[in-house]
Amino acid sequence: MSTHPIVRYTSPASWALVEDKFSPFAKETLAKLITFLEDEVEPATKLAHLQLPTDETQRWKTVLPVLAELKEKAKKLGLWNLFLSKQHYPEYGVPLSNLEYAVMAELLGYSSHIASESVNCSAPDTGNMEVLARYGSPEQQQKWLKPLLNGEIRSAFAMTEKNVASSDATNIRTSIRREGNEIVINGHKWWISGAGDPRCKIHLVMGKSDPENKDKHQQQSVVLVPTDAPGVRIVRPMKVFGYDDAPEGHCEVIYDNVRVPLGNLVLGWGRGFEIIQGRLGPGRIHHCMRSIGHASRALDLLLQRVTDPSRKTFGKYLYEHGTVVADIAKSRAEIESARLLVLSAALQIDKVKAKGALKEIGIAKFVVPSMALTVIDRAIQSFGAEGVSQDTELAARWAGLRTLRIADGPDAVHIQQVGQRELKRVPQLVERTREIKKKEQAILEKAGYKL
Amino acid sequence: MSTHPIVRYTSPASWALVEDKFSPFAKETLAKLITFLEDEVEPATKLAHLQLPTDETQRWKTVLPVLAELKEKAKKLGLWNLFLSKQHYPEYGVPLSNLEYAVMAELLGYSSHIASESVNCSAPDTGNMEVLARYGSPEQQQKWLKPLLNGEIRSAFAMTEKNVASSDATNIRTSIRREGNEIVINGHKWWISGAGDPRCKIHLVMGKSDPENKDKHQQQSVVLVPTDAPGVRIVRPMKVFGYDDAPEGHCEVIYDNVRVPLGNLVLGWGRGFEIIQGRLGPGRIHHCMRSIGHASRALDLLLQRVTDPSRKTFGKYLYEHGTVVADIAKSRAEIESARLLVLSAALQIDKVKAKGALKEIGIAKFVVPSMALTVIDRAIQSFGAEGVSQDTELAARWAGLRTLRIADGPDAVHIQQVGQRELKRVPQLVERTREIKKKEQAILEKAGYKL
Amino acid sequence: MSTHPIVRYTSPASWALVEDKFSPFAKETLAKLITFLEDEVEPATKLAHLQLPTDETQRWKTVLPVLAELKEKAKKLGLWNLFLSKQHYPEYGVPLSNLEYAVMAELLGYSSHIASESVNCSAPDTGNMEVLARYGSPEQQQKWLKPLLNGEIRSAFAMTEKNVASSDATNIRTSIRREGNEIVINGHKWWISGAGDPRCKIHLVMGKSDPENKDKHQQQSVVLVPTDAPGVRIVRPMKVFGYDDAPEGHCEVIYDNVRVPLGNLVLGWGRGFEIIQGRLGPGRIHHCMRSIGHASRALDLLLQRVTDPSRKTFGKYLYEHGTVVADIAKSRAEIESARLLVLSAALQIDKVKAKGALKEIGIAKFVVPSMALTVIDRAIQSFGAEGVSQDTELAARWAGLRTLRIADGPDAVHIQQVGQRELKRVPQLVERTREIKKKEQAILEKAGYKL
Amino acid sequence: MSTHPIVRYTSPASWALVEDKFSPFAKETLAKLITFLEDEVEPATKLAHLQLPTDETQRWKTVLPVLAELKEKAKKLGLWNLFLSKQHYPEYGVPLSNLEYAVMAELLGYSSHIASESVNCSAPDTGNMEVLARYGSPEQQQKWLKPLLNGEIRSAFAMTEKNVASSDATNIRTSIRREGNEIVINGHKWWISGAGDPRCKIHLVMGKSDPENKDKHQQQSVVLVPTDAPGVRIVRPMKVFGYDDAPEGHCEVIYDNVRVPLGNLVLGWGRGFEIIQGRLGPGRIHHCMRSIGHASRALDLLLQRVTDPSRKTFGKYLYEHGTVVADIAKSRAEIESARLLVLSAALQIDKVKAKGALKEIGIAKFVVPSMALTVIDRAIQSFGAEGVSQDTELAARWAGLRTLRIADGPDAVHIQQVGQRELKRVPQLVERTREIKKKEQAILEKAGYKL
Repeated sequence: MSTHPIVRYTSPASWALVEDKFSPFAKETLAKLITFLEDEVEPATKLAHLQLPTDETQRWKTVLPVLAELKEKAKKLGLWNLFLSKQHYPEYGVPLSNLEYAVMAELLGYSSHIASESVNCSAPDTGNMEVLARYGSPEQQQKWLKPLLNGEIRSAFAMTEKNVASSDATNIRTSIRREGNEIVINGHKWWISGAGDPRCKIHLVMGKSDPENKDKHQQQSVVLVPTDAPGVRIVRPMKVFGYDDAPEGHCEVIYDNVRVPLGNLVLGWGRGFEIIQGRLGPGRIHHCMRSIGHASRALDLLLQRVTDPSRKTFGKYLYEHGTVVADIAKSRAEIESARLLVLSAALQIDKVKAKGALKEIGIAKFVVPSMALTVIDRAIQSFGAEGVSQDTELAARWAGLRTLRIADGPDAVHIQQVGQRELKRVPQLVERTREIKKKEQAILEKAGYKL
Repeated sequence: MSTHPIVRYTSPASWALVEDKFSPFAKETLAKLITFLEDEVEPATKLAHLQLPTDETQRWKTVLPVLAELKEKAKKLGLWNLFLSKQHYPEYGVPLSNLEYAVMAELLGYSSHIASESVNCSAPDTGNMEVLARYGSPEQQQKWLKPLLNGEIRSAFAMTEKNVASSDATNIRTSIRREGNEIVINGHKWWISGAGDPRCKIHLVMGKSDPENKDKHQQQSVVLVPTDAPGVRIVRPMKVFGYDDAPEGHCEVIYDNVRVPLGNLVLGWGRGFEIIQGRLGPGRIHHCMRSIGHASRALDLLLQRVTDPSRKTFGKYLYEHGTVVADIAKSRAEIESARLLVLSAALQIDKVKAKGALKEIGIAKFVVPSMALTVIDRAIQSFGAEGVSQDTELAARWAGLRTLRIADGPDAVHIQQVGQRELKRVPQLVERTREIKKKEQAILEKAGYKL
Repeated sequence: MSTHPIVRYTSPASWALVEDKFSPFAKETLAKLITFLEDEVEPATKLAHLQLPTDETQRWKTVLPVLAELKEKAKKLGLWNLFLSKQHYPEYGVPLSNLEYAVMAELLGYSSHIASESVNCSAPDTGNMEVLARYGSPEQQQKWLKPLLNGEIRSAFAMTEKNVASSDATNIRTSIRREGNEIVINGHKWWISGAGDPRCKIHLVMGKSDPENKDKHQQQSVVLVPTDAPGVRIVRPMKVFGYDDAPEGHCEVIYDNVRVPLGNLVLGWGRGFEIIQGRLGPGRIHHCMRSIGHASRALDLLLQRVTDPSRKTFGKYLYEHGTVVADIAKSRAEIESARLLVLSAALQIDKVKAKGALKEIGIAKFVVPSMALTVIDRAIQSFGAEGVSQDTELAARWAGLRTLRIADGPDAVHIQQVGQRELKRVPQLVERTREIKKKEQAILEKAGYKL
Repeated sequence: MSTHPIVRYTSPASWALVEDKFSPFAKETLAKLITFLEDEVEPATKLAHLQLPTDETQRWKTVLPVLAELKEKAKKLGLWNLFLSKQHYPEYGVPLSNLEYAVMAELLGYSSHIASESVNCSAPDTGNMEVLARYGSPEQQQKWLKPLLNGEIRSAFAMTEKNVASSDATNIRTSIRREGNEIVINGHKWWISGAGDPRCKIHLVMGKSDPENKDKHQQQSVVLVPTDAPGVRIVRPMKVFGYDDAPEGHCEVIYDNVRVPLGNLVLGWGRGFEIIQGRLGPGRIHHCMRSIGHASRALDLLLQRVTDPSRKTFGKYLYEHGTVVADIAKSRAEIESARLLVLSAALQIDKVKAKGALKEIGIAKFVVPSMALTVIDRAIQSFGAEGVSQDTELAARWAGLRTLRIADGPDAVHIQQVGQRELKRVPQLVERTREIKKKEQAILEKAGYKL
């Protein structure tokens, strides 16, 4: 049996399925990541909490010193930009497949809320770097991609709009129009993750440049808007349940007659839809794997809680009461099956690109966050009032995950799409049934049965 | 069919079951309450939000002016202390049964987070008033119950302790001991609801006065501790999914060598367990009915959202997509059946006191909060990101309800108790089976069957 | 607390809600029914099993002697046709409301599979008697209703058709046409319950008499077809899971050029849809209450099983293992809430007729059978292999109930209808919101807030 | 992407995970099996139904001619005893790993109820052959294993006892004792699968040979009992939801003073527990994979039903109504994740034997049958009444699967065991937490925080 340290975090059974698909480099990187998370990131998490001011204004102006240190360490260790697959991004990427990174992403989710950023693998920068690496001009890459890859700045992706049913991208109202050598942007966005961060220097803004185009998918463009451009106004942070998620936040942002040079257009006029399509596949898998990490962490916390001698009630350990053991078993089963689903989707992406793995990605997208919410909720329940409070990480993890059932398309959209894809199998099934019926007839006739 | 305005809020079917159990006074009060909530309370809710400072210190020092006005109006209308049943509290109560108040409690939950307090029916004051009315000495009643009944002060019930498995009351560690003519209290509590409020003047503190008593249920006493007694220290507010619930809050409180006169002992030495037992029945039903109100509100919000023309996606209303209509139907069914469960429990309490209705109360306690959380979660999903944010009331209602699966005994405790009560039916069932088998034998023998 | 024997079968809480709506006659009849079921019907059930031949042909030709005796006894006791409410059928009915009978129907379901027939309250005769009592001509009533009311013959309702999507009644293909003084029927039906019984003398056949009528709901007629009319052919019994439900059965039936006199038309040409509409309301409630009886029985069997000392494993009673106690508690809660739902629907029917209670009936229809299946499934699990076998009644009860999620419209149809009815509340909700917003504006302005 | 025909039956994503673990022989065998099932087995299934007499006596005396032919064909094609892994049974096995056979087992479940037997891979023969191959003496192997491997005879495993809580094997009461050169067996068993078959020639009977042994797991022995030994009496077939599963059946069997030679003892006195332990691992995985095949078949049937133009209601395809598309998506997700779970367990068995894969096997055991029941139930619902009848295979498949939640240990046992295994991870988790806390302290101190 494998002695790789990953088996302390993932079941031997799921590791056995994928181990022979890991390169030596990936195995080594994985081991280094585990050590880094255990020795550096997790022990530093409380300090990161303490370094964030509670004052409502100050908390949005802070760069956590401990996080900056962690990033330097990670960079030196080569634990950096692990999400960016060399296979898809030869110039900037690291030699890791989606499958290989997926296992690491689970660890990042398991470990701590600062883990992803400490290895420069946190959304929305990840998706933005993918966009810039794939579609950015050399100038755009020089100016924005490089510092993002170096972890010097942060970025936002401005798509969701207030009072707009934005799960249908064709509803977008933000206007992007050319005026001479400039592009003028007017729009009202919200839930712009990362826009609150003092290091956030660039917004990728999606809007309509050609709202009358008959092809609904060619009406949109994406433009790079520096945060300090006149007219960019951060209105307020949106809260998730009661959390503001400072300093990154999810902000309401108004673009009021913002002007940027023509060169800030990404890829070309009318290609905004194409850009967001390309942005969605692997990122969803990363989210899913991190979610599994959250669930796994919650189960580990629950296990420690229900065996804590100081929590005994009526003379028994918590795990000896009611349905706790059954809840543990179900949680384990749910985590294992969810992980396998996502790993199989990641492998599909490696084999046939995201476009060939849409059913698998869709399944992961609607199964995993709900699963993780359920497992965390069980853990919360085991912790009693402490579980809903600031004294464990459970409630905050839960709230963060709750948004995943909404972001990147609500559950219902993915469920419908997976269902529709299944329906496409029908003609093949009907043909199969017909063939077998024909043979059945022949057999029955031969056996003397009148039909 | 009844034309009482309640049928706009509750189904005609559930109203039909209970209408003839309502006195004319109760029907009239119910109608007045509806008008008050629609005309005064709900329209004032946003103002109440705005009057609460965002500053972390100030928000704990504020008495909302609009709430004070609402309370004056309610008192004049006779919409006051509706929870306190004259049947059980002849001196102080209003002539409403638990069943009658239950229907009103649902409306309070439906309406707004300031509704309960505006009619002086908010926890933990309700339970504390019951305790003082039932067990308080004349002096205690004069000093604390009267101003509570008048809505002049607020109160807290200090039971839950930090790092103690407090769903088993015998685990409590706070020390309450006599020293001469004084009682000395030392303890570390948390989740003391209401303790953050500047109007909170009195804590009912549960502790151990006789920890060596062989009868585990006679070790506890309850003492009245004025908030301004030296040694009472509010450490911090606990948060619920990021919410601080200011100005009331749920506070961590240290009682450090607090001294109160002997006359502050409630009921007698060693009678603390008896006091909390008496406190639990009707209060749980009120919580449940308010929870149903929350669910009902969430469904009504969902209904408006999914039919909002501005939320159309891909050319269809939201309700025309996926499983929305089914979710609505299930939510309606779940709300209706939960309401009937709680109403039947409330009627049981009226008929045979809380002690005779423990199975019904237990069922309501574990069924209703989960049901309401599910319905609100569906509503959140229908609102997308807005649903998890501060811009709807859904996330805050959800978080508040989540604590109900923990407070007053976690779900698991009630589930086990209901199950155990069912097991007590076995001897009667076994006897019935034996009787019928005997008759069966006789019949078979008579019919000539050898056995 | 009530001392009526019904509290041995239904919870005191649900009985308390309805007791004052029961007439003295109803209470007395209910008590007599309980005694009859305990003393006569249940003890005779095994004999009924034994009297049914196992031979595939003989079992369809048998009238169980013990059932005939029970029917005589019931008739003498006045426990007869209890389903037929005098309020709706003044000429033939008994003075029981739907609510009053509903409680009795639960007992019939609880008791035994021969209970309903022993008091002449078994489907499809019940619905057929309602049709004949409401719509039948004096001649039809004389010839068919009287013997049905006397329990001398049995009947069938032939609606469902093979290879037709029959949850949409307009799809029906059976042809009913006039030829001179005769009506000619041609059609292929199946799942015709009761058609296998040697005592079944009359089929009420639904078909299309005017397939070209523009009003899709006036194309259908219902005709009375004596079982012995030439051309009526029972093809085979359909099985439910592996059960044939002999001697009644659910048969495939071909009507091949069957001719009956004009007088056999029910109500009038083109009024078939009207007839089936009138047939659906109370019958569904009866089915639901019987289902609750099944669930209640299953829970009582489970309770006895898990406390049976001879079933101990690893030194513990079954109820001491795993999640058994939680399953018991959930089952109890589910049964209680389902019963309350159905009782409230029954009361609605009494108050405003079935037409005014469609939402309540719809909710009951999709909630109750699933609930009962879940509870029975838990009981099966507690019995191990015995639970799926012929040695307990659980598997057969489960299979019978499984059809209720399909018959009279599949779950999905009722779920959609309930959801659509909820959507009709939207205009009222929107108006309410608008009113409150208006008042809110006024309050905010008065308080000096700019909007 | 792989072009192996298996991708018509299993998702490309799960196949991608395991393909490189398949030997060329396994891939070829898999392809042959698919062709055999499509061309021979499925088309012959209806004939097999017709060849089984409906007469209650005759159906237990029949060897289906078509099945005998299929077995001959399969043997010639080398599609024979595929379950018996050469790795574990070098002498008799085929060169297939558990993982490789697992994929085939799903196909057998998907295909038809005669598929497993047609390739000599049907329970209980499979487990019995494993027992005889591992523990049988040369004489036993010659006499019983050889004809079983050749498919000439069939066998039964007699463990479950009437009125005994047999999920605890130490409860067994059947007596096995030595008398001179003979072994005398007395016992009352039931649910002995296969015992009804005229070809069943041998029972492996589990009983107590040393009931007073202090080691509870050394009290049992297993003895080979020829079906025709005097005293072996088949009492009756047990039914499963009305099905008798003739000709194999699940029989009640009495062993009344049955005498067999000493040489019929398997492995040794007191080693019965060891034998059944060795019998459980891979067999459970096979059952699970077949169950996934059942679910997969049900979904494929559902897909064809809901797109059948002749089933339209109210102008729409069935899939356009209600929650059908969502049900499809969920079913697909559930099948995929269940398959991955079982494949990972199968791989674990290959890597570290069943003993090292108990958690994975346990998870599969309690997750998969419930999942498959749910999916089949949805398919039943989509077929309406036809779905519960003899006209589709759905109800029979459902009933067969329902027993899997009971056989080989009820769900609850596996859930508890998996939960308990998880609890064993606690010491390692506690240690991890301690380590990280220690580092956290150091970091906080260094940063100047007092603790």
